[in-house]
Amino acid sequence: RVNGDRLWDSLMDMAKIGPGIAGGNNRQTLTDSDAEGRSLFKTWCDEAGLTMGIDQMGTMFATRPGTDPDALPVYVGSHLDTQPTGGKYDGVLGVLAALEVVRTMNDLGIKTKHPIVVTNWTNEEGARFAPAMLASGVFAGVHSLDFAYNRKDPEGNLFGDELKRIGWLGDEEVGARKMHAYFEYHIEQGPILEAEDKQIGVVTHCQGLWWLEFTLTGKEAHTGSTPMNMRVNAGLAMSRILEMVQGVAMGEQPGAVGGVGQVFFSPNSRNVLPGKVVFTVDIRSPDKAKLDRMRAKIEAEAPKICDALGVGCSVEAIGHFAPVTFDEKLVSSVRSAAERLGYSHMNLISGAGHDACWAAKVAPATMVMCPCVGGLSHNEAEDISKEWATAGADVLFHAVVETAEI
Amino acid sequence: RVNGDRLWDSLMDMAKIGPGIAGGNNRQTLTDSDAEGRSLFKTWCDEAGLTMGIDQMGTMFATRPGTDPDALPVYVGSHLDTQPTGGKYDGVLGVLAALEVVRTMNDLGIKTKHPIVVTNWTNEEGARFAPAMLASGVFAGVHSLDFAYNRKDPEGNLFGDELKRIGWLGDEEVGARKMHAYFEYHIEQGPILEAEDKQIGVVTHCQGLWWLEFTLTGKEAHTGSTPMNMRVNAGLAMSRILEMVQGVAMGEQPGAVGGVGQVFFSPNSRNVLPGKVVFTVDIRSPDKAKLDRMRAKIEAEAPKICDALGVGCSVEAIGHFAPVTFDEKLVSSVRSAAERLGYSHMNLISGAGHDACWAAKVAPATMVMCPCVGGLSHNEAEDISKEWATAGADVLFHAVVETAEI
Ligand SMILES: NC(=O)NCCC(=O)O
Ligand SMILES: NC(=O)NCCC(=O)O
Repeated sequence: RVNGDRLWDSLMDMAKIGPGIAGGNNRQTLTDSDAEGRSLFKTWCDEAGLTMGIDQMGTMFATRPGTDPDALPVYVGSHLDTQPTGGKYDGVLGVLAALEVVRTMNDLGIKTKHPIVVTNWTNEEGARFAPAMLASGVFAGVHSLDFAYNRKDPEGNLFGDELKRIGWLGDEEVGARKMHAYFEYHIEQGPILEAEDKQIGVVTHCQGLWWLEFTLTGKEAHTGSTPMNMRVNAGLAMSRILEMVQGVAMGEQPGAVGGVGQVFFSPNSRNVLPGKVVFTVDIRSPDKAKLDRMRAKIEAEAPKICDALGVGCSVEAIGHFAPVTFDEKLVSSVRSAAERLGYSHMNLISGAGHDACWAAKVAPATMVMCPCVGGLSHNEAEDISKEWATAGADVLFHAVVETAEI
Repeated sequence: RVNGDRLWDSLMDMAKIGPGIAGGNNRQTLTDSDAEGRSLFKTWCDEAGLTMGIDQMGTMFATRPGTDPDALPVYVGSHLDTQPTGGKYDGVLGVLAALEVVRTMNDLGIKTKHPIVVTNWTNEEGARFAPAMLASGVFAGVHSLDFAYNRKDPEGNLFGDELKRIGWLGDEEVGARKMHAYFEYHIEQGPILEAEDKQIGVVTHCQGLWWLEFTLTGKEAHTGSTPMNMRVNAGLAMSRILEMVQGVAMGEQPGAVGGVGQVFFSPNSRNVLPGKVVFTVDIRSPDKAKLDRMRAKIEAEAPKICDALGVGCSVEAIGHFAPVTFDEKLVSSVRSAAERLGYSHMNLISGAGHDACWAAKVAPATMVMCPCVGGLSHNEAEDISKEWATAGADVLFHAVVETAEI
């Protein structure tokens, strides 16, 4: 079993870097705080005797050697970056539990045939630079390096420039590494495990996603002196599209979600009707047919809504992953580890996207999940108990050691 | 008649300060650009032999003496601050035409019984610090100085601190000056004069306004892993309120408008349902009963919309002025000046609020308007012709000289 206290202490130490405003974290990717978090993580990896490699996306790979020089490594990881108002566990738990797995192996003197690589993927959240899971996406060949380097944050800074600026641009070719297997441990970020009173989620699938970025073009005009019938009101069109998206998602229940987290009005002044409104629709389903049907409905309805108001409507798909089925053998290894350790468990479909979804394209992959209080995530109040964190880390330890072969 | 070329040159010189991104201006109140614009204006006033006084709100009063030491001054002015994406004429025309009036009087050696005071009110736009017409509101006793100093911009800077920082905090007590009359010349910012092919708007009234700032409280949560029925979606509530406001305004046609120019999602991340949405509803009507009825309907409906979604709803009235009726004698003086000069004219109700609306509380006041292309304002593409600008300045000159008595 792992050392739950040591894991918890590391989580609390990492949470001191890039504190939020309400007890959580704001350690967005490629900020100074991200650099600081990476340095702390590297110190811990050094202390554990791991060898650090950095690729051209800034992803960190800390290797514990195996006994067979020809055996491909087992990768175990997640991400240290957070949402602007993120929790202390989303991503961080997966990286530090992977570290705890090798720390425990060191304590017990366990040697494995396959090397173990503790991994911190760059920009999983996609909050600062869309899309999410950017570095693992390049790793899996979904995006080009050039595409990634040219992603812009809301201030117009480029991903490539910021990676260089914070000093974590590595020289390893992205995706050159081959994996024997990929494991990721994560908080559920949803309400199911807690509601079902289970300690472990055995993650069999991940739902698919589309991010549809709308740019609506109205006519910037004075709110007082512009008669109602002369308005070209992009804000009103946005409102109607939000309501329509809600309807489309409700029409595909159960097994579908749809909503909007980000809206920019321009010029965003109280007495100016917006000339431009930009917002992103996030739709998801574990069922590919449902997911694509939702996208088609939204893309058919939105222009009609805009046309009726004279508003210009353009839409770009800026993020996508298809639903994923995880590797059967690895899933079984997680399930039997939970059995063996006496932890209650159930099968889960991941509601959120994870680096494991892209890793699954190039290697056998799966995930382990633990509950989080009230299903709350992407919220500074995100919370888990030390016991929950430890149970999942124990399961991860057993499944990883089994897969890496003693 | 005034010198239209000189007026136009001054407009173009001022427009070089705080350029926008699309040919207009971003010279928001109490920014470095505002300070630069004020300095240029002061230089011109000095050259015209005027004496500058600055009050504790930073409002600039440039006096041309009268012949009767006991006669109260005639004030003529508007504002030099702009929207973030503002035009070159909104406000600026009124200040520089007032300057042109005294320049023309100097050219012609005209002496008046009443002094003339060219006025530049601070923070008319209210874009950076709500409410609009802030300095004239303090002048008229509508707001306290303390209230004004504590207004915050979106970055949290205080009005009082910014006024000091840019070096335009004066020592005159605000509102101590007494006025014989107040004139303001402004572009219409609406489509009526152009549609009716009239050169001059004789402004008889100004419609009233409420700014209702809503703060909706939802539950920040992951867009992927939060099932539809567990969402507390403040963004959806905002959408429904926008639609409701549209319906309320349409239900009061003609003679009413309602819309939303400013929306802030928080944390505004693509995969986070907003925990907080803040936005301002702007409703206006020349009819006080209509205006107050719209406010009552909106404040009654919004909480119901929010309740149905479990969203918290609070609303604060952050800006208000009642409909204004301008001074009959001054209105006649504007109308007869237009007649005398041979300019086509019509009566107008101002759709936008103006410093004249607050001045009307403490002195006889009125306005002169000229058309603007397509009725467009609060838009960098705002446009007028030199001929339109000159015609209004001629009318202003005649009405001011008549009121100030030769
Ligand atoms: N786990 C997580 O929040 N990933 C970000 C990508 C997503 O929105 O699902
Ligand atoms: N004239 C003008 O745009 N004033 C700002 C106040 C308002 O929104 O009416």
